[in-house]
Amino acid sequence: MSTLTDSLNACEKNCSVFENAIRTLDIPTCSVFLKSGLLAPVTFVETGETLSTKDSETVDQAFSQSVNSSKNKVLTADGVNTSPLKGKRVAVLFSGGPAAGGHNVVVGIKRILGNDNTLLGVKAGPKGLLDGDLFEITNADIAKITNTGGFDYLGSDRTKIKTDEQFAKVKETCVRHNLDAIVVIGGDDSNTNAAILAEKLYSGVKADGSGVQVIGVPKTIDGDLQIGSHLPISFGFDTATKIYAELVGNILQDTPSSRKYWHFIKLMGRSASHVALEVGLQTKPAITLISEEIAQKRLSLSEIVEQISVIIIERAKKGINHGAVLIPEGVIEFIPEMTALIEDLNDKLAHFTRELEGKTISEKRDFVATKLKAEHAQLMASLPDYMEEMLLADRDSHGNLQVSLIPTERLLIDMVGRRIKEKDHSVKFNTQNHFFGYEGRCGAPTLFDAAYTYNLGLTAGSLILTGRTGYIASIANLDKGGTPLALPLTGLLNVERRHGQDEMVIEKALVKTNSPAFQYFDSRRKDWAESDQFASPGPRQLWGPSAKQLPITVALNQGYDGLLFDF
Amino acid sequence: MSTLTDSLNACEKNCSVFENAIRTLDIPTCSVFLKSGLLAPVTFVETGETLSTKDSETVDQAFSQSVNSSKNKVLTADGVNTSPLKGKRVAVLFSGGPAAGGHNVVVGIKRILGNDNTLLGVKAGPKGLLDGDLFEITNADIAKITNTGGFDYLGSDRTKIKTDEQFAKVKETCVRHNLDAIVVIGGDDSNTNAAILAEKLYSGVKADGSGVQVIGVPKTIDGDLQIGSHLPISFGFDTATKIYAELVGNILQDTPSSRKYWHFIKLMGRSASHVALEVGLQTKPAITLISEEIAQKRLSLSEIVEQISVIIIERAKKGINHGAVLIPEGVIEFIPEMTALIEDLNDKLAHFTRELEGKTISEKRDFVATKLKAEHAQLMASLPDYMEEMLLADRDSHGNLQVSLIPTERLLIDMVGRRIKEKDHSVKFNTQNHFFGYEGRCGAPTLFDAAYTYNLGLTAGSLILTGRTGYIASIANLDKGGTPLALPLTGLLNVERRHGQDEMVIEKALVKTNSPAFQYFDSRRKDWAESDQFASPGPRQLWGPSAKQLPITVALNQGYDGLLFDF
Repeated sequence: MSTLTDSLNACEKNCSVFENAIRTLDIPTCSVFLKSGLLAPVTFVETGETLSTKDSETVDQAFSQSVNSSKNKVLTADGVNTSPLKGKRVAVLFSGGPAAGGHNVVVGIKRILGNDNTLLGVKAGPKGLLDGDLFEITNADIAKITNTGGFDYLGSDRTKIKTDEQFAKVKETCVRHNLDAIVVIGGDDSNTNAAILAEKLYSGVKADGSGVQVIGVPKTIDGDLQIGSHLPISFGFDTATKIYAELVGNILQDTPSSRKYWHFIKLMGRSASHVALEVGLQTKPAITLISEEIAQKRLSLSEIVEQISVIIIERAKKGINHGAVLIPEGVIEFIPEMTALIEDLNDKLAHFTRELEGKTISEKRDFVATKLKAEHAQLMASLPDYMEEMLLADRDSHGNLQVSLIPTERLLIDMVGRRIKEKDHSVKFNTQNHFFGYEGRCGAPTLFDAAYTYNLGLTAGSLILTGRTGYIASIANLDKGGTPLALPLTGLLNVERRHGQDEMVIEKALVKTNSPAFQYFDSRRKDWAESDQFASPGPRQLWGPSAKQLPITVALNQGYDGLLFDF
Repeated sequence: MSTLTDSLNACEKNCSVFENAIRTLDIPTCSVFLKSGLLAPVTFVETGETLSTKDSETVDQAFSQSVNSSKNKVLTADGVNTSPLKGKRVAVLFSGGPAAGGHNVVVGIKRILGNDNTLLGVKAGPKGLLDGDLFEITNADIAKITNTGGFDYLGSDRTKIKTDEQFAKVKETCVRHNLDAIVVIGGDDSNTNAAILAEKLYSGVKADGSGVQVIGVPKTIDGDLQIGSHLPISFGFDTATKIYAELVGNILQDTPSSRKYWHFIKLMGRSASHVALEVGLQTKPAITLISEEIAQKRLSLSEIVEQISVIIIERAKKGINHGAVLIPEGVIEFIPEMTALIEDLNDKLAHFTRELEGKTISEKRDFVATKLKAEHAQLMASLPDYMEEMLLADRDSHGNLQVSLIPTERLLIDMVGRRIKEKDHSVKFNTQNHFFGYEGRCGAPTLFDAAYTYNLGLTAGSLILTGRTGYIASIANLDKGGTPLALPLTGLLNVERRHGQDEMVIEKALVKTNSPAFQYFDSRRKDWAESDQFASPGPRQLWGPSAKQLPITVALNQGYDGLLFDF
């Protein structure tokens, strides 16, 4: 074997040159965690602020132990904790889809717990908590996962812990592993689950009558878990959007090079359009759709198609036969007439199950067309064949259509193409379509996500060492040193109707059209549509002058002066 | 307006924080171009080596002026040129699909020509040369394009200059703009064109009887323009494969995190599998298909499907229900039975045009099935419906199927899914499919591509200042300082049958199964298939410890000791 093949062999199993380099990269740390240059846990004090929602009265009753303890008050870091608790056994788990930086949360917790406490990893998400599948996390493990992407160190799943039987199993695990605390790293639903767990485990879990603390950490690439200045953003959003923004920027750079294509690009991000808005602000393409605006203006599919077509035709008149259209994954659900059609279809398909049995797709279509409301039948008939087929496809176990499977990018290409031909036959309209999703969830974290998650871990660990429960960790003032906060989970719960019953949940944060980020986008998009004004943000850098950048939407909405984060 | 919105506005038009930072990044330069720290053109001397192909005799006759001059001898840089030509007017153009680093070729030429010569840009590719669409490139332009991705500064197209009328137009442009030299930045076909242009413009172009020099520069992300140790690789390959490798690495990192999916990933790269092999070596996924191996072993589609299915089932037995399969864009054309089927179909569709007119797809299918050879009809019937539809679709103007439009990744998912069900119904097989292509052509160049292209530009410019014509610029010994070479284009020409007639062209370099790169891949892939051994090469870095990496295939095939490039 040669020297080269030796070194190539050594790169296997997550040991590429890059992966080895980032493992030893210094992680920026909020100064409040440093005492004479050494890491130390912090204490917390109440700020004057109390969190509440429209449903706080109902929630306060259901979560009486947690609320009695926290009074729903926001806590802020208040200097080094000189007498932290010791001998704590803490479990940490990932819940839901992966997001960059998850490993660094674990690193932060482990480092702040130090050698006086024990950190256990829960394998494969909440299910591992039910099964008691835990193992001790070592310092050697930490060295291996530092700054790396993915959730693979622990694994993850989407189990929801809701039933009495499940809570009993969690308690069993707590007793068996003698746990004092659990850290849940997850999105809105997982943190709702953390709130419920905190209440259920508040006391009387272990033989001595003591409870188990539960702390949440805000994760999701979708960015729909954010709470004003208290929680500027969930982790993973920055990395995912910077990955997508690089790709969109590369494609935009391609458009005036090859002068040939309109690219229709769908971006992952579930319902909310935070991802599309951030990528739009990073790259400044001709067109970025924002679902929340479409819903607010009650635009029809036909109106959206018309708006896109007009921009394409106007550019063509200037000789620009290229560009890009960014499409949020969930846009279909925000077009009022489409949701009405889908609801009507769900009803009719459920109602006429027997009549539809054994029918071919085209027989189904003809039959259903006679049963739908007239305007829905008309909308249905205006869609391409494959869309009709999808809309008539089998429903999930709740009788709902899996909207995420609709190829919105192709649908828009087809309908825009048709419209352009009607309006101006001479316009060149060659297209490519893309969906960027999975490639954004497990990339190595940006320097911001690496630092943010590490400090979230330090915050979560510090909360445990002061005996707190029922909080979600956060860092505010990202542009000015970073301020660790603890937000009472109960203060975030709303009553929502889900699957036919009222549930207390954390509301998904949608893009607000009156937010500074949307307003800035709105002020620039006309220029971006008229001719090429795009930028290519490039690959995210861990070293060098462009490494320290916050998401643009976060900097705008938080009212920061620049994009630099400072800790 | 706030400070932040001001700085966001300032990012428009390719002025992101990253783009501004790379513009001032130092470009590594081969020491031969430096004289007391200042840039200087080099002279060239003949090496002992002569280039030839099986068809050199025919080629030498057709290109008598060029061959008389070069004797098909390889030239190497030989120290600083102390009396470079002056007053030269040089035109540069991009030809074909974009590739990262194109702008730096222009930067290199401009810098080496200095203020004693003039550099003109040809707009929108070879077509701009016919139309005489040229403009003078300024130092301000150079500052703007340095290290940036894309071909947008000049634009590009795919016009081939072949007819007498076209050559007359080129001569007209040369006279009108008083050109002394043309640099063609392009792939195999464009450099074939450069060879022809060099011969046609050898002399008698301008009023004083002088000719116009023509120099080629090797560009293509596909990597199929490479010539042993004389031309280690075309530019753009490193950036494209590092972009794809990051995405594949991110997805691989996702697989054991979410434990749910097999990802089938098609990679751009036309016929050859260089891109797939490089990305496979960078990321080490469970399965990487190499078209050239499939052709060599004469594998059937069914055998390929079987091999993939066996690996998936074996992993499932170990509880690994995830992984990735890399698929070269052109694989279909390398499966002998598929090419035979497509040829048979092309024949039958052409032969029975009248009979097929007005028939539906299913009528066409039934009719054609009776006309195909039995084994072809059988293969056709084994394919999913949409494949049958594609195979029966309208042909291009040459009567050929556009193979690149076949969704190979979906085809393999469907056929593998079916096979797995037959073999073991209990195996979980959830999938996602991807095509990575356009996002890899115009990204900001890797440090290697930035340096390689800049030095190729310095080489091309130096050749012009010594009066040479008919060469392609190259840099050898990338691991040891870099040696600028000039390869006589005529020494690379072969006779090939294209569109029904013999043409003299540069042969596309395919992956050789006896090459060190393939052999190393072959020695490791069994382990990679059995369980996760993957690596995530991460986003390409322009700063920091992982910035200076060569393509793995290049380092292996050139017999280098490591991945570092050294200049």
